[in-house]
Amino acid sequence: MRLRLAFVGFGVVGQGVAEVLRDKGKQLAERYGVELVITAVTDAKKGAAADPAGLDPAKLLSWLGKHGSLNGYPAPATGWDSLTTIKKAEADVVVEASWTDVKTGGPALEHFRTCFAAGKHLVTTNKGPMVVAPQEMIEKAMAAGVELRWEGTVMSGTPVISTARRGLAGCTISGFSGILNGTTNFMLTEMEGGKSYEAVLKQAQELGYAEADPSGDVLGWDAAGKVVILANTVLHVPLKLTDVKITTGITKISLDDVRAAAAAGERWKLIAEARIEGGTVEAQVLPQRLPLANPLAGVMGPTNAVTFHTDLVGPVTIVGAGAGRSQTAFAVISDLLDIHRTLVERQG
Amino acid sequence: MRLRLAFVGFGVVGQGVAEVLRDKGKQLAERYGVELVITAVTDAKKGAAADPAGLDPAKLLSWLGKHGSLNGYPAPATGWDSLTTIKKAEADVVVEASWTDVKTGGPALEHFRTCFAAGKHLVTTNKGPMVVAPQEMIEKAMAAGVELRWEGTVMSGTPVISTARRGLAGCTISGFSGILNGTTNFMLTEMEGGKSYEAVLKQAQELGYAEADPSGDVLGWDAAGKVVILANTVLHVPLKLTDVKITTGITKISLDDVRAAAAAGERWKLIAEARIEGGTVEAQVLPQRLPLANPLAGVMGPTNAVTFHTDLVGPVTIVGAGAGRSQTAFAVISDLLDIHRTLVERQG
Repeated sequence: MRLRLAFVGFGVVGQGVAEVLRDKGKQLAERYGVELVITAVTDAKKGAAADPAGLDPAKLLSWLGKHGSLNGYPAPATGWDSLTTIKKAEADVVVEASWTDVKTGGPALEHFRTCFAAGKHLVTTNKGPMVVAPQEMIEKAMAAGVELRWEGTVMSGTPVISTARRGLAGCTISGFSGILNGTTNFMLTEMEGGKSYEAVLKQAQELGYAEADPSGDVLGWDAAGKVVILANTVLHVPLKLTDVKITTGITKISLDDVRAAAAAGERWKLIAEARIEGGTVEAQVLPQRLPLANPLAGVMGPTNAVTFHTDLVGPVTIVGAGAGRSQTAFAVISDLLDIHRTLVERQG
Repeated sequence: MRLRLAFVGFGVVGQGVAEVLRDKGKQLAERYGVELVITAVTDAKKGAAADPAGLDPAKLLSWLGKHGSLNGYPAPATGWDSLTTIKKAEADVVVEASWTDVKTGGPALEHFRTCFAAGKHLVTTNKGPMVVAPQEMIEKAMAAGVELRWEGTVMSGTPVISTARRGLAGCTISGFSGILNGTTNFMLTEMEGGKSYEAVLKQAQELGYAEADPSGDVLGWDAAGKVVILANTVLHVPLKLTDVKITTGITKISLDDVRAAAAAGERWKLIAEARIEGGTVEAQVLPQRLPLANPLAGVMGPTNAVTFHTDLVGPVTIVGAGAGRSQTAFAVISDLLDIHRTLVERQG
């Protein structure tokens, strides 16, 4: 089967997917029987190109590398904005990897709605719409008869959503606790080596982990967005971002605090969690001192992890990358293969 | 959809599944749209009963609790042996949870072949056939056009096989390292508390973790069987049990060794692993001293874990139960729901 892809957003994630298609496209076709073809690309900063016959990922990437934008790229159509691309591209699946705003959903919310109205499947790594209106997005996709996948919104390509929704199907999941932000976990890990909060923040910014305004990471908003996604789509409760209890994130954790925890055989972690108790859901992103025997205590550096609490199989913890170019690109590949599998089985 | 189940083997696992169907059958039907109905049960020690209209799991369990066997159970057919049950039961899926022999495949190998010849789907928690002839089993199932699932053969219901084969599809998995035997991990954990090997072995036997002849666990044969299953069905290499390097398991690890590791900030673990390098596969089950920063080092007690090494998303570790009544029962439920999902999508 041929799946034609329209990319909305062609930054690190979009280009990462193009790299995988360039390097492993043939292998994926042989192994899974699916030809993944890019027929359109649009990006607010880098321009746009569309070709129903397919855009060569190697050529796209080398053009971008040389020119810094898609302006002048030889294609039958150029200059399409996001909504035009979603509506007009000859594509089966829209890959949404544009800019994320977890407070308003950003322009991506409109991209999603337009995609469903156009009857196209959607794979997203964009947290915005899945934080602001997850139930609406899932319902709209179902009503439109299209597939929606969002593996890359939590822990990049580490299979968290698919494991919880598919691998743990049959269990009742009553809650989860996780380390869902790599920047802060990297910072806490480095502080154990004796560096101050200010020094590790600077280091995280230099490494590109933290942004110039680091508050989304260090206060816990980024992790809270992921709590909302997991609560809505794994626990199936209508949690909103403002329902997640947040205080000062890791900003008030001092080197003394880190040392005191170590002396007691414990470790500070920014724990993002939600739990259904007595019919209501409690959700929070708070720094906690964990005993070293807790599986989350051993998760170091930018690595992420989440423990799902289930009735039949007990706690199940998944540890893996929380971010990264090929890691997030893989989330898209994984979702595309899953949609392909669903479509193939549906054909009989 | 209605899925009719024939149980071959009705010990801890089979009865565990019946308990889930008794307690959660209605919920599963509502949530997933599948009615799981037991139409036959056969067990070498406990007898057999079959009823195309369905055997009530609550009644089966209470009869067994009262009488210790199914002799005299009121059903249209009784006394069927395994092969008769597989052939004659009005069932869509055979649930194979009989006695495991990882060296010969035991009678289960014949159960599998008969099941495929009868055109019935198969869910197994029985390692035997998947260790002795995994490729043949998968090929026979495909040739017969039936579904085969074996989640429960490794780490009980912890979603390891499904995550590796489905959630990580698109990645190349070059190897894995795991703690795949709960008994030995429990023993090593207890030894850290200062108990001798002999004392913790006795404790493991009293708790029912280890058998009277503990060699399958302590030498590493049980874990080696799981290495073979993962190598064949996740790495897709034709590894045999005799290819797995095994020496003395944990039998030569003394309290002094455990203390020396702790003093160096390390921990002994029985590591079961396989790795593809230069086109060949190296597999072993050997005790190793891991630094505490290794995610496997923090896995304590009877808990199991496995790290898959992938090209696109890096290492992904899954930590969860390795055994247990409801845990292994869940593996069967999970596989049945997955088969149901496949059949539903196939119907369109």
